[in-house]
Amino acid sequence: MSAIQKNVEAASEKYSSSFTKGHLALPPAKKYLVLTCMDARIDPAQAFGIELGDAHVIRNAGASAPDALRSIIISEQLLGTHEIVLVKHTGCGMLTFSNSDAYGLVETNLGSEAVDELKTRNLDFLPFSDLEEEVKKDVKYLQDAKLVPNNVAISGWIYEVETGKTRRVV
Amino acid sequence: MSAIQKNVEAASEKYSSSFTKGHLALPPAKKYLVLTCMDARIDPAQAFGIELGDAHVIRNAGASAPDALRSIIISEQLLGTHEIVLVKHTGCGMLTFSNSDAYGLVETNLGSEAVDELKTRNLDFLPFSDLEEEVKKDVKYLQDAKLVPNNVAISGWIYEVETGKTRRVV
Repeated sequence: MSAIQKNVEAASEKYSSSFTKGHLALPPAKKYLVLTCMDARIDPAQAFGIELGDAHVIRNAGASAPDALRSIIISEQLLGTHEIVLVKHTGCGMLTFSNSDAYGLVETNLGSEAVDELKTRNLDFLPFSDLEEEVKKDVKYLQDAKLVPNNVAISGWIYEVETGKTRRVV
Repeated sequence: MSAIQKNVEAASEKYSSSFTKGHLALPPAKKYLVLTCMDARIDPAQAFGIELGDAHVIRNAGASAPDALRSIIISEQLLGTHEIVLVKHTGCGMLTFSNSDAYGLVETNLGSEAVDELKTRNLDFLPFSDLEEEVKKDVKYLQDAKLVPNNVAISGWIYEVETGKTRRVV
């Protein structure tokens, strides 16, 4: 067992020994979802004030709205959420590379068969170059999406990894 | 401003006032990633013992490995992670519906234009019917994926929303 796996077991032991939230229902109590980045420096529960059971939390590389669409539709249509809080962040890795950089890395590290697989999937890593513009663009994407109801409230924010602050953009 | 948005602002004020982690680096310090579900009843940091800055956390509906592939490649190739902890959970919403149920709901709630959009995208909501089997299936998917290096350690777990425990499956 790896050190990481031992750490999961130790955390489970500790967390479950004082766990009192076994009664929570499946649908989010406050009927909203948070979409943010997978970045290691973000703790959504603490930074954005999410109590256990209150909200769906979707995380992917860059807090991409198009990449999260399947989960967003399930959250809204199956589990009744009707507000989206989208949070990107300063110092995001997605600001540091291009699709051709990523394809090149895959070729170097995993070989030409892996690159062929990327090409077959037509995989777009969805990097971006302007943080505020990307927040606005993704909010607009969700506002315009036929698969997101018009009455869903959508706000866009930036979390500052340097200060722990979350500020609204749109 | 909605109550949810006010709550984000209040949480930001509180969190940033005692924030001391502005020095953390972009790459995860412990070089691993956790893939889990968006479910509102999961707090990965607490339940799985993730310290701020240590691991990428990817979350989507059902903790789907195929749906997370873009983020996983970025985590590994661009930011140097080489271990995956995949955690699905009891009481998952993905156990409760089929693709045709979801298509039907979208038609009822959003109309035929929205369903046409689902069909154009050939959108698979990726529901499943056996929790343990799905953990094993997703771990195997990652082990076999040409886009995931062979030296990446991959473990599969189930978090119990009733008890707060996380137990290893594979």
